[in-house]
Formats: sequence, structure tokens, C-alpha cells
Amino acid sequence: MITVLAGGVGAARFLRGLVGIVDPTRITAVVNTGDDSTINGLHISPDLDTVTYTVAGAIDAERGWGLGDESWRVMESLGRYSPVRPAGSVAANTWFNLGDRDMATHLYRTARLAEGGSLSEVTAEIARAWNLPIHLVPMTDDPVATMIEIVEERGTRVIPFQEYFVGLRHSIPVRSVRFDGIDSAHPNFLSLIDRSEVVVIAPSNPLVSIGPIRALTGVDDRLASVRERVVAVSPIIAGAAIKGPADRMLVELGLEASVVGVARLYSPICGTLVIDRQDAALAGAVESEGMKCVVTDTIMSSPEISAELARVTLGAVLEKGR
Amino acid sequence: MITVLAGGVGAARFLRGLVGIVDPTRITAVVNTGDDSTINGLHISPDLDTVTYTVAGAIDAERGWGLGDESWRVMESLGRYSPVRPAGSVAANTWFNLGDRDMATHLYRTARLAEGGSLSEVTAEIARAWNLPIHLVPMTDDPVATMIEIVEERGTRVIPFQEYFVGLRHSIPVRSVRFDGIDSAHPNFLSLIDRSEVVVIAPSNPLVSIGPIRALTGVDDRLASVRERVVAVSPIIAGAAIKGPADRMLVELGLEASVVGVARLYSPICGTLVIDRQDAALAGAVESEGMKCVVTDTIMSSPEISAELARVTLGAVLEKGR
Repeated sequence: MITVLAGGVGAARFLRGLVGIVDPTRITAVVNTGDDSTINGLHISPDLDTVTYTVAGAIDAERGWGLGDESWRVMESLGRYSPVRPAGSVAANTWFNLGDRDMATHLYRTARLAEGGSLSEVTAEIARAWNLPIHLVPMTDDPVATMIEIVEERGTRVIPFQEYFVGLRHSIPVRSVRFDGIDSAHPNFLSLIDRSEVVVIAPSNPLVSIGPIRALTGVDDRLASVRERVVAVSPIIAGAAIKGPADRMLVELGLEASVVGVARLYSPICGTLVIDRQDAALAGAVESEGMKCVVTDTIMSSPEISAELARVTLGAVLEKGR
Repeated sequence: MITVLAGGVGAARFLRGLVGIVDPTRITAVVNTGDDSTINGLHISPDLDTVTYTVAGAIDAERGWGLGDESWRVMESLGRYSPVRPAGSVAANTWFNLGDRDMATHLYRTARLAEGGSLSEVTAEIARAWNLPIHLVPMTDDPVATMIEIVEERGTRVIPFQEYFVGLRHSIPVRSVRFDGIDSAHPNFLSLIDRSEVVVIAPSNPLVSIGPIRALTGVDDRLASVRERVVAVSPIIAGAAIKGPADRMLVELGLEASVVGVARLYSPICGTLVIDRQDAALAGAVESEGMKCVVTDTIMSSPEISAELARVTLGAVLEKGR
């Protein structure tokens, strides 16, 4: 069994590489749901959908989210209602764009949850509809909301993750991150960690993608107990994130936007860090944080590079066991 | 003030004619909500939408429901999920087709109701978004469900109206009709009846469109008290309904599918029945039921005919007062 702790785009690309090199029925992706939001009455699970669509080969690669061959008729039509909603209403929300094909997924998920289905069950159904060869598991079936404390001129304000990420295009400083509901949320994958030959921490934002997964009760302890079988791929390359605000967030929260900063975050729970060739000079510094360090190409610009990265990542743990 | 008790297509066309001949701000349409359903998690109000889209000039005239210039991407995409839903689930319902543009209306309504808006408030907002010149009022803000007892080979079964009307294309015999929730539903328009110069019962199905409106507590009594100001347009022409199952339902429920059958239903609450020229020979029989009878063209195949029908209908009451 191989378990991958996953956020959105980076994790999805890693998984797509991974299915090419091992029997995909052995792979379980445990996906962050802290970004889940109810928008226009629909339950949106951005990371689950990004992983599903990417592994299915249906993602819009250029946009990086949502489906290819997409149209935008519903959202265009919804704009008619924005001017008539009363003050305080968030109906006819058009800043969070959803394509017509994509909307079917949200309608199905929302209707099934309203019928009493669990997020795990509904996620498995959606995965089956897309013929996903891997197992897809939301980190928890309970509601967790990643909340971002942002710094504005007149003080700080706490907003839901999607409002920061999509609404404000993550262009505003972050003071702190918290995960509402995390203490009472039950992790779906604790025993899976024990049973896994390898646990991969995918190249996702360590704070807001991997952060919620780790913050679930018992997860860090369980990872620490199998630390030598846990391997992370750094989402930071040459001091920057390929996509998203991970680099700035690390700095804003007093950490270092480098593979060494990532190593400091992961060292307690993870024995090995895979870093990009551009950061080869920092391998020693990573090892000083108590981690094994593996250097390879980590920019997943093609399925072949993703597959090779997956091979090297698994190898870092499996070779050790031989 | 002119109040029009309205179902779907026939009422909508009548209203479109009416706005051409009187100041539309004097017109209030009180619309049946017994057909309202939650489908794919969306609150659908078929008659409200048909009236809104028709008066706005945005209806798809050929199809008779929904918007023109429509596309069907969401529903096509939703079909992917039908095979994976568990037994008993009604998610990924594709028999009730919704266009992409139309879906924005349902998303807005559903989100606003979830925020605590009343159906009246949300209906007024939607009407404003479409620049409707008339007032649009749902018959009640409380849930009422028109339920149809259908006759099958193995017995009878009670199903929601839309399942009978759309799902089964109303092609199955009806034994009875009931309105779940009607006794505790508060009518939104009782005082409006008192204040109206004319109350028009639009050419809608007397049993399942006008029926729920009349079945609300106090409505029939209030209509009876102003009976001379109430005028109905027969939805039955030469023994048949222009659209829908009204003719068959009348017979199946032991009534007569003719203007005389309509007169028997409406006579207690309505002083005048407008019938089509094709039924001129039955004018005497209508009068024998205690109603004044007016004969004119009632097939609203053009806006001009609708306007003329509206003029004759109002005149039947207003002339009397002179």
C-alpha cells in the first residue's frame, strides 16, 4: 500500500505520475478538505476535484483547475441576480467561477450529502464515475474550514480560505492560519498509515494543504511512529512555489521559503525530503535538520517527469528497507 | 388593482397580453407553487419561472418552458453520475431537464432560501432581475406539494406532481389529487382579493394549477365574497386542453372535460366564464350553472390575441360595474 497525503495541483500531478509506475489499486490519495466551501449552495471540494480530474486526464491543464472543454453559461447567467440580492446575501456569487461541466460534480456531491451520504462515500462514487484507478479518500468526513487571518490597512480579518485564495487571489499578507472544526474531526486514514509501505507527502502547500491533514487528531503522532517510511516532495523550488502562495505564506508566518524551511516543518514526521536539482547545494542543510535528502527533477512539466519523480520518491523509502 | 390567479403556460401568455393593455404596476400575479420540487438539490418553481420568463419575453416559445438560447451542458455532464449513485438515491436526476441559463435561477433561489429569505422575497428579487413590470407573488411561502394518485396495473401509487407531469409525461390515469401541507400553509394574497377591481382566474389547469391556490385556507370563501368581480378564462376549448392533461384529469376525476365542467368547478367563486368561440353553443349551459358567459377567441397563438383576450376578460367585470 502507498498512501499519498495530497493537496491540489502539485499532488494531482504527482499522483498522475505515480499511477504510471505502480499498480494503481495499491495507491490511496488522502486529500485535504480544509478548502471545501459552500458556494451558491453547492458543496465544493477543490482539492478532491483537482485530483480526480487530473488523474482522470480530464483537467484543464492550462487553467490548472476544473475540466477541459468547459463552458461558463450558468455562471454568466447567474450574474443577472447579483444586483438584486439583498445586503448581506452571498447568493449569486460570481467571483468563484464554476464551469458548466464542473457544476455537475458539485450538484451531485451536494445532493448526495443532503441525502445523508458521507463525503467518503460520495468521493468514492465520483471517483468511480471517472474510472479512477486509485482510491480517493477525503482526509475527514467532518467539516473542517481553513481560515486565514489576513493583514489589512485597518487591522486583521479572518476569512475562509477560498475567499483569500480565489476572491483576493492570495495577494494579501497572512498573519495566521487556523482550521476550524479540526479538533472534533475524525481522520479517515490513521490505520492506513500503519499499513502503508510508503507514505508520500505530496508537493503541496505545507501550511494550508498538508497542514490541515497533519492537524487532525493523532495524525502527526502516527506519522512520527513510521517516520522512516514517510517521504516528502518539497513544493518549494529555489525559494519559490511553482504555483500558489506557499513561498510567501512561509515567510509571513516566520518560516523560511526554502527546502530547509520545508525540512524544518516536516522533519518530526518524515524521514526523507526530495528536493529539486536547483536546490542541490542545500542538501546538506536539509540533512542537518535530521532528514535524508534526495535530489532530482521535481518540476512536473510532463507526465514522464512526474513518473520519474514518483519512482525516485518511492525508491528513497523502499531502497532503504532492502 | 388586478389580481391574476396563475398556473404556468396559459396564465403566463394571458399575463403577457394583459401587460399590453393596462398599467402593469396594477397587476399582481398570484402563482401556484404546488408543483415546486427539490430536484438535484435545487428548489424548482416551475410556474413562477414560466410566468417570469414569459412576461420578460425570454421564454423558449417552442419548448414552452425554460429560457430561449439555452444549452444543456450541466445536465449532460450530470449523466456521468447516474450509474454510480447508490440504490434509493435521487441524485444525478436527469429526467427533469434543466438548461444552463435556467439553472442560474434555481441556484439563486435555492441559495437565497437557504439564507433564510422567504419565497416571496426571492420571487420579487428574481422578478426585478428580469425587469418584470408586474408584481409576482407565490401563492404561499410555506411548502405545499401537489401529490397525484396514479393508477397502475398493480394498484395505485401517490407521486409528486413533477414525477407525474414530467417523469411520466402525464400519460397515466389519475385517481385523485391532494395538496400536502395545504392546511398549514398561509396564503399570501387574501387581502389582495378584497382590494382588487378584478380577479382573473387564468386559463390554467383547474385541478392542479388553480386547485392548490383555491385549497389554501380561506381563499374560496374570500373569492365567493367578491364573486361578481371574479372572471375565469376556460382552459378547456372544444373539450380539450391546449396543453397538458387538464382534459383527461377532469374526466378521470369524474368531472366533465368541457366549458360546462369548468363552470361547475368555478361557479361558487366566480361570476363570469370566458369561453372560446368553438364552444359558443355551450354558452347557455354555462349560464345554467349560474355564471355569466362571454364568448371570444381564447387560443393565445399571438401576443395580439392574448391582449384582446385580456381586454375582453377585464371588460366582462368592469363593464358590469358601470
